[in-house]
Amino acid sequence: METSNKSKGQQQRNRGVTYQGPNTVQVKDIPYPSFDMTIGGKRRNLIHGVIVKPIVSGICGSDEHMYRGRTPVKTGTVFGHEVVGEIVEKGMDVENFEIGDWVIVPFNIACGRCDNCKQKFTQCCLKVNDLQPGGAYGYVMMGDWPGGQAEFMLVPYADFNLVKIPDKTMAKSKILDIALLPDILPTGFDAAVRAKVSPGKTVYVAGAGPVGLCCAASCFVLGAARVVVADPNPARLERAKLLGCDVMQVDERSNINQELKRVLGAEFTDCAIDCVGYECCGEHGMKRKTSAEKSEALNQVFRAVKYTGAVSLPGVYMANDPLAETAEAKEGFLLVNWPVAWNKGVSIEQGQCPVLNHCSFLLNLILNDRLSIAKALNTKVIPLDYAQQAYQSFSKGEAVKYLIDPHNMTGLLTTSTEAK
Amino acid sequence: METSNKSKGQQQRNRGVTYQGPNTVQVKDIPYPSFDMTIGGKRRNLIHGVIVKPIVSGICGSDEHMYRGRTPVKTGTVFGHEVVGEIVEKGMDVENFEIGDWVIVPFNIACGRCDNCKQKFTQCCLKVNDLQPGGAYGYVMMGDWPGGQAEFMLVPYADFNLVKIPDKTMAKSKILDIALLPDILPTGFDAAVRAKVSPGKTVYVAGAGPVGLCCAASCFVLGAARVVVADPNPARLERAKLLGCDVMQVDERSNINQELKRVLGAEFTDCAIDCVGYECCGEHGMKRKTSAEKSEALNQVFRAVKYTGAVSLPGVYMANDPLAETAEAKEGFLLVNWPVAWNKGVSIEQGQCPVLNHCSFLLNLILNDRLSIAKALNTKVIPLDYAQQAYQSFSKGEAVKYLIDPHNMTGLLTTSTEAK
Amino acid sequence: METSNKSKGQQQRNRGVTYQGPNTVQVKDIPYPSFDMTIGGKRRNLIHGVIVKPIVSGICGSDEHMYRGRTPVKTGTVFGHEVVGEIVEKGMDVENFEIGDWVIVPFNIACGRCDNCKQKFTQCCLKVNDLQPGGAYGYVMMGDWPGGQAEFMLVPYADFNLVKIPDKTMAKSKILDIALLPDILPTGFDAAVRAKVSPGKTVYVAGAGPVGLCCAASCFVLGAARVVVADPNPARLERAKLLGCDVMQVDERSNINQELKRVLGAEFTDCAIDCVGYECCGEHGMKRKTSAEKSEALNQVFRAVKYTGAVSLPGVYMANDPLAETAEAKEGFLLVNWPVAWNKGVSIEQGQCPVLNHCSFLLNLILNDRLSIAKALNTKVIPLDYAQQAYQSFSKGEAVKYLIDPHNMTGLLTTSTEAK
Amino acid sequence: METSNKSKGQQQRNRGVTYQGPNTVQVKDIPYPSFDMTIGGKRRNLIHGVIVKPIVSGICGSDEHMYRGRTPVKTGTVFGHEVVGEIVEKGMDVENFEIGDWVIVPFNIACGRCDNCKQKFTQCCLKVNDLQPGGAYGYVMMGDWPGGQAEFMLVPYADFNLVKIPDKTMAKSKILDIALLPDILPTGFDAAVRAKVSPGKTVYVAGAGPVGLCCAASCFVLGAARVVVADPNPARLERAKLLGCDVMQVDERSNINQELKRVLGAEFTDCAIDCVGYECCGEHGMKRKTSAEKSEALNQVFRAVKYTGAVSLPGVYMANDPLAETAEAKEGFLLVNWPVAWNKGVSIEQGQCPVLNHCSFLLNLILNDRLSIAKALNTKVIPLDYAQQAYQSFSKGEAVKYLIDPHNMTGLLTTSTEAK
Repeated sequence: METSNKSKGQQQRNRGVTYQGPNTVQVKDIPYPSFDMTIGGKRRNLIHGVIVKPIVSGICGSDEHMYRGRTPVKTGTVFGHEVVGEIVEKGMDVENFEIGDWVIVPFNIACGRCDNCKQKFTQCCLKVNDLQPGGAYGYVMMGDWPGGQAEFMLVPYADFNLVKIPDKTMAKSKILDIALLPDILPTGFDAAVRAKVSPGKTVYVAGAGPVGLCCAASCFVLGAARVVVADPNPARLERAKLLGCDVMQVDERSNINQELKRVLGAEFTDCAIDCVGYECCGEHGMKRKTSAEKSEALNQVFRAVKYTGAVSLPGVYMANDPLAETAEAKEGFLLVNWPVAWNKGVSIEQGQCPVLNHCSFLLNLILNDRLSIAKALNTKVIPLDYAQQAYQSFSKGEAVKYLIDPHNMTGLLTTSTEAK
Repeated sequence: METSNKSKGQQQRNRGVTYQGPNTVQVKDIPYPSFDMTIGGKRRNLIHGVIVKPIVSGICGSDEHMYRGRTPVKTGTVFGHEVVGEIVEKGMDVENFEIGDWVIVPFNIACGRCDNCKQKFTQCCLKVNDLQPGGAYGYVMMGDWPGGQAEFMLVPYADFNLVKIPDKTMAKSKILDIALLPDILPTGFDAAVRAKVSPGKTVYVAGAGPVGLCCAASCFVLGAARVVVADPNPARLERAKLLGCDVMQVDERSNINQELKRVLGAEFTDCAIDCVGYECCGEHGMKRKTSAEKSEALNQVFRAVKYTGAVSLPGVYMANDPLAETAEAKEGFLLVNWPVAWNKGVSIEQGQCPVLNHCSFLLNLILNDRLSIAKALNTKVIPLDYAQQAYQSFSKGEAVKYLIDPHNMTGLLTTSTEAK
Repeated sequence: METSNKSKGQQQRNRGVTYQGPNTVQVKDIPYPSFDMTIGGKRRNLIHGVIVKPIVSGICGSDEHMYRGRTPVKTGTVFGHEVVGEIVEKGMDVENFEIGDWVIVPFNIACGRCDNCKQKFTQCCLKVNDLQPGGAYGYVMMGDWPGGQAEFMLVPYADFNLVKIPDKTMAKSKILDIALLPDILPTGFDAAVRAKVSPGKTVYVAGAGPVGLCCAASCFVLGAARVVVADPNPARLERAKLLGCDVMQVDERSNINQELKRVLGAEFTDCAIDCVGYECCGEHGMKRKTSAEKSEALNQVFRAVKYTGAVSLPGVYMANDPLAETAEAKEGFLLVNWPVAWNKGVSIEQGQCPVLNHCSFLLNLILNDRLSIAKALNTKVIPLDYAQQAYQSFSKGEAVKYLIDPHNMTGLLTTSTEAK
Repeated sequence: METSNKSKGQQQRNRGVTYQGPNTVQVKDIPYPSFDMTIGGKRRNLIHGVIVKPIVSGICGSDEHMYRGRTPVKTGTVFGHEVVGEIVEKGMDVENFEIGDWVIVPFNIACGRCDNCKQKFTQCCLKVNDLQPGGAYGYVMMGDWPGGQAEFMLVPYADFNLVKIPDKTMAKSKILDIALLPDILPTGFDAAVRAKVSPGKTVYVAGAGPVGLCCAASCFVLGAARVVVADPNPARLERAKLLGCDVMQVDERSNINQELKRVLGAEFTDCAIDCVGYECCGEHGMKRKTSAEKSEALNQVFRAVKYTGAVSLPGVYMANDPLAETAEAKEGFLLVNWPVAWNKGVSIEQGQCPVLNHCSFLLNLILNDRLSIAKALNTKVIPLDYAQQAYQSFSKGEAVKYLIDPHNMTGLLTTSTEAK
C-alpha cells in the first residue's frame, strides 16, 4: 500500500486537454499529480487524496462556455470534470478505498469537513477554493484544480468525494450510463428534484442538450406524467422523443404558452426547468450577447410554469462574459420579466448540483436496469487526441455526448472517422 | 338543475351490501339518499352534497376485518368505500360539478372547512364523525355514513371531496385502474411516500394483497431501485412478480434479514412498509389473536428496515377486537420489539391515507399510460348480487380484487360462474 | 338565523374608502353587500358567505402602490384587505360560524374547493378571479371584490376563509396585534419561513416598513440568532430596534456586504428577505422608475445572502406600472444581477402569502402572550373619515401603521388631531 | 505542530470515571490517548484525531441506565460523552483546528466519510463501531471508545466531529450553557424538531429531567405557544416553570387527557415528546421491569398527542435489560397501545440525536443571548473525584445537572459540601 505523501509516479508522464484561447484546445504534456501539490497558489497536504486513471472523461456543455471564450479562464487550464476512473495510488489518510477500485468522481471538489459540506452543500465547499465557495476539476474560478480530460488526475478528500462502483464487470457493461454520473445525470436529476417534480406532474424542460435530456429522463424517474422538451434544434428533439418526451421546436420568439396548449392541452406545466443558461450551443446561442438576449431561456421558463409552480435553473449564468456587448451584459446582468414569476408565486432553485447527494442512488438505478439513457444521448467514446475535434462539433450544437477514454479501457473507442 | 334540499328520488328504490353478523353479508333494500338526512344520529343539511350512482365499487381488505367479526360494526351497516360513479343529483351549494359528471369518490369523508382538512389531513376531518376525527363511507366507527356497495349513495361536501374524470370514453377504457383510485392505490402510494421511498432506494413490502401490490407499484412510480414483497401465499407473490418485484415467501417464523440477504444481497432495505396490519386474510390471519401474534407484521418491518430507515403502516391496527384472546389483545395492545426500532432511529408514519392529496396525480399517470396495475391485481368485475360470495372468497386469501358494478355500466361484468 | 340568499340589509347604507385617481382616495357611499351579487362582471351565488362589520381595517403598504398611481386600478374601487370584524349575517351553507362571532378575514379570497386551495395555495385560488389565479378584497387585478375599509363587507366561502377568535374580551385587549393577522403579520412570517429562517440563523431584512417589521419579529419567533434590518429612513429603523434587531441605514448605493461585516461581523447572512419590492414609500421610492432602479432592493438581497442561502420576496413586483419611464420598466422588466444569485445557488420564494396557513398559529402566539408587535409598529387607530390623510402620510414614509375602526368598536380611536 | 502518529504524552498520566458494577463507579487511572490505538478490538490509524482536555464533562441521564445495571456494559468502561474541552494535540490530517482551540465534542462519534454521515445521520456512522451503526464515547454497545469523564480523551475525525468555539472569553462566561451542547440540548432540540414543533403549536413533554427541560426550552425556541411538562417529581416541575412551561404532576395511573384539559384547556397537544424512556430516575423508575411498565411513558405520549399529531422519542429504549422481570422485557419488548397511535395517524421519530446537525446553530443562540437554560437545569460543577456521589444523587431523581471539571478550568467548582 502506497501511503507516503510523495506519489510514486513523479517520473511518470501525463497528458491532458488544455485551453489555448477562444475556440482552441490542445492535448499537451501536463504534470503527473502528487499528494503534496500547489493548487490555486497554495501548497496543500493531500494525504487524504488518491490518484485516478480515467476510464471515461466527458466533455460537458459547461466546458463549451470556456471553450468559446465567454469566461475569463486562464490559458493552459486542463479541462475535464466528468470522470469515472480507477484508483492507482492513495494517500495515508484514505480508509475506504483500495488501489484498483473503480470509482465515480463527482465534479464538485469538497472537503467533507466544512460547514457547507456537512450540510450537504458540496457544491459550495468552503475549503477548496480561495476565490469563492465551491471547487471543480478543470474549471474557471473553481480553484485551479487540474481537470480530468487527461491520463491521470488527483482527487483530494477521497473518502468523502468518491463513490465506489461495486462490480467492475457489470460496470464495464454499463459504462456509457455510468459515465454520466460525475455530472450531467445528477445535474439533470437534481434540477428535477429542485423543480419539485413528483408523481403525476407535468414538466417543461428548456433545452435538449445532454443536461436537458438527463433532466427529462430524471423527471420520469421521479414519476412525471408528461415531460415537454423545447429546443430550436430538431436533431436534439429527436433524442428527447426516444426518452418518451413530448417535444416543442421553439426559438426566442415563440409563444411558449400557445405551444404548450397545442402539445400538452394546457398552457402551463407544474414544473419548468432551464437547461440552457445564458448562452447556448449552436448559431443563435453564440449571438446571445445583451442583457435581454441572455435571459431568453429564463423568461420562457417563467412563462411556462403554472401559478404556484416551481422552477429550477441548472443552466449556467456566469458573471464575467468578455464577449458580451454591453457593460451590464459583460457583468452578467439580465433583463428579467420578474412580475410574471412574482405574480405566479414561483419558487426558484438554481446553481451547481451537489452530485454526491444523488450519485449512488442513480448508480443503483443503472445497475438494476431501471435507468439507461446513454443511447438517447448519442454517446460517443473517443480517444484523448480526438478532443479538439469533439469540442468544435459539440460547440456547433451537434446532438452528441462525447466521452474521452484516454487509456482504451472501455473497449468502445470510436475511430475518429466514425466519430465525425 | 336540481338544487332543492330534497332529492328527487325519494320514491326511488336502492339496494346495498349489508353486514349481518360475522362472516355474513346480504344485499338488501336500503333508503335512497337525500340532501337532508340523519347521519350518526344527527340531522344534517347536505346542500353541499351530490347523489352518486356507482359505476364500480370495490371490496376492500379493510372490509374483511368487519366481515370476519374483528370489529364492533353494527348489524345492517351498508358497506363500501371504493366508489367511482356518475353524479345524478346535486345540492344547492355545489359549484364545480354537473349532473352526468363521472367522479372518483375518495373513501375519506371530509368537509374541507375544518382545521384538519385545511391542513390536508382529510383522513381526520373534525366535522363528519362525532365519535372521533375522520369519516368514511360504510365503515365502523367512521360516522355511520351509508356505504357505496349499493345502487346509489350520498357524497357530502362534493366540491371538496370529489375528483372529476375529464374524459368518459378514456375513463371507460381504463376503468379497472381508475377503480383503484378511491382507496387502495392512493393508500399504497401514500404508504410509499410516508416510508420515504425515493429514486434508487430499496423497499420491503409486507403483504401481497391488493394494498401491498398497489404499494409495490407505487414504489416504482417513486423511483425505487428494488422492491421486495413478502407474503405467505405463493399465488399472491406471483402477482407481485408481474409488477417487477422481487418476492419472499415468509411466515411469522421467518428470519427476514436472512431472506433479504438472499434475495436482495443486503439484510436491510432503505424503507419498509406493513401492508398487513393486526389481522390478515387467509388461515393464519384469522388466528392472530394475542398481543404477540397481532404484532408479527409490525415487528418484521422493524427488523427489515435499515438503521436510519423509514417505516410506514398502512395496514390497519384497530382498538376493539371482539375475537381476540386476551384482555390486552381485545383492546388492541401489541407486544412490540421496540428497541429494534429505537436503536435504528426508525421513523414511523401510519394511519389512514388522505386520498385527496394523491388522487388526481395518480389519475394523471393512469390517463397518460404511465401506471396500470389492475391486471396484476387480478381485478374481477361482479354484479351486486355476487357480493356475498366475493366476501367469502377474498376472506380466504384469494388473490383477486373484486369490483362491484351495480348497474352494468362497465360492460365488464363477469358472470358468477367465471368469477368463481 | 338568516339563511336566505337575500341579505336583510338591502336597505341598509354602507360607506367605504374609494380610489379617485393618483394620490386621491375619498370616503363615499357604496352598496351594502348581498349573498347574490355581481362580482367581476359575473353573477355569483354566495350562500356560503357572511357579511362582516369591520372592527379594524388596516391600510397596507400595498394599497400605496395603487394610491400613488403605479397600477391600473379602476376609479371607484373600494380599498381594504386587512379586516378583523364581527359577523352580522350568514348564508345558508355556513356551518362553522354564528352571527356575533368575531373573525379574522385573511386578505386572500379562496374557495376551498379548487386544486390550488386544496394544496394550501390559497393565494392562487382558481375560482374567485377570472383574470388570473388569486383574489383579494379591494385590490387591482384581484377579482373586483369590494374592500373592507368600509362599514360592511362580504366574505365568501366563510367556513373556509375565516378564522374564529375564541374569546372576545381577550381579543379586545389584544386587538392591535390581532389587527395584523389578516395580512402583514402572516405575510412577514411566511416570508421568514420561505427564506428558511430557523433556530440560530442570521437574517437580512430589506425594509423597515410594517411588513419588514412583522417579518423581523417573525424571524425571532422562528429562532433566528440575529436579524439585521436595512432601510434609508432612521425613524423606521428605530422601530426595528424595539424588536431586538440590528439595523443598517442604507440606500441604493450602499455596499451591503461591507455594512453587514460592520454590524454583524460577517459579510453574508443565512437568509435574506426583500420587504420592499419594485417601489417603496418615501421620496426615493417614488422615483424608482427604470428597470435598474426598480430592482435595487432585489439585487441587494442577492448580495446579502450567503452561498447556499435562501431568499424570499414578499415585496410586491407588479407587471403594469403606468408611471415607469421605459417601455420595459412599464411592463415590469427588471435588470437583475442574476449570476450573483446563480453562483451562490440561492433559492428564491416569492409572491403573495397564503394567510390561512399561518393565521391561527400566529393568533395562538398573540393570545398566549408570546408575540406582540403592534407597539413597535406604531399602530394608530383612526375613524373612517380620517383615511384620506392617513394614505397621504403613509405614502411619504411615515413610520406608522394605520388601522381604520369604522364603528368605534375598539374604543381606541385616535382623534384626527392626535393622529397627525 | 505535533503531527506524528504517536502522541507526545505517552508517559503522561490520565484518570477517569469507570464502571465497577451496578450502582458503582470509581475514578481510576486509565491510559493516556494516542493516534494509533486499539478500539473495539481493532487497531486504528487515528491521524485524523485530536487529544482533548475536558473543561466540562457532564453526567447524563443515559449514563444512569448503565450505572444502575440495566445494560450489559463492561466493567472498567470509562464513562462520559458530554465534553467541552481544549485541544492539546492533533494528528497529521487535521486541517481546521489548532492546539489551544476550545471545542464542543458532540457525543456521537462519526467518520464523516460513510454513507450515513454524508446523509447527516451521524448517530449511525458505519465505520466507528463494529457491533452496529453508531458510536459514542464511553457508552455500552457504542464501539468501546473511552469516555470523557476523564482528564484527557481522544476525538477521532476531528475536522468532521468538532465544533469550534470562536471566543474563549465569551465561552468562559457562558460555559454552563455551552456545556449542554455535546448532548442534552441538541438532543432536546432535535426531539422538538422531530415532533414537528413549530410556531403557535402546543407540546406535551413527558419528563422534567435535564433532557426534558432542554426539550421544553427548545420548543419555545421553535415558536411553541404552550409547552406542558409532566413528571411525578415536584422539584423537577419547579425547574420547568422557570422556563415558562405549564406543568402536570403525573404518574403511571394519571389520565393524561383529563390533566391536559385542566391545564391547557384542550385534551390533546399538537406534538408530544417522550423524554423518559424505558426506565427513569427515582423510585418508580427503578421498578419499571415488565413489558407493560416499561412502556408507560410511551403509551402516555400516544394518548396526549392529537389526531394527525407528531411524536418523538428521545428517551432511551434499549434491547438488553438484565434487571427486567420477564423474558420479553429483558429483550426490550414493550406492550404498546398501538391502535391509539394508528388511529390518530401519529408520526413517530426516535433514536439518538445527530448532534452535529444542531450544535453550531444552538451555540449561536447561546452566544447571542437568545438561549440560556443552565440555571433552570440547576447545573452544578464538580471535581472529578466527586463523580461517584453525583451518580448516586442523580440516580435518585435529584433535580440537578452535574458537570465534571477535571482541571478546574471553569473556575466554578462547587465544593463537595455545597454540591450535596
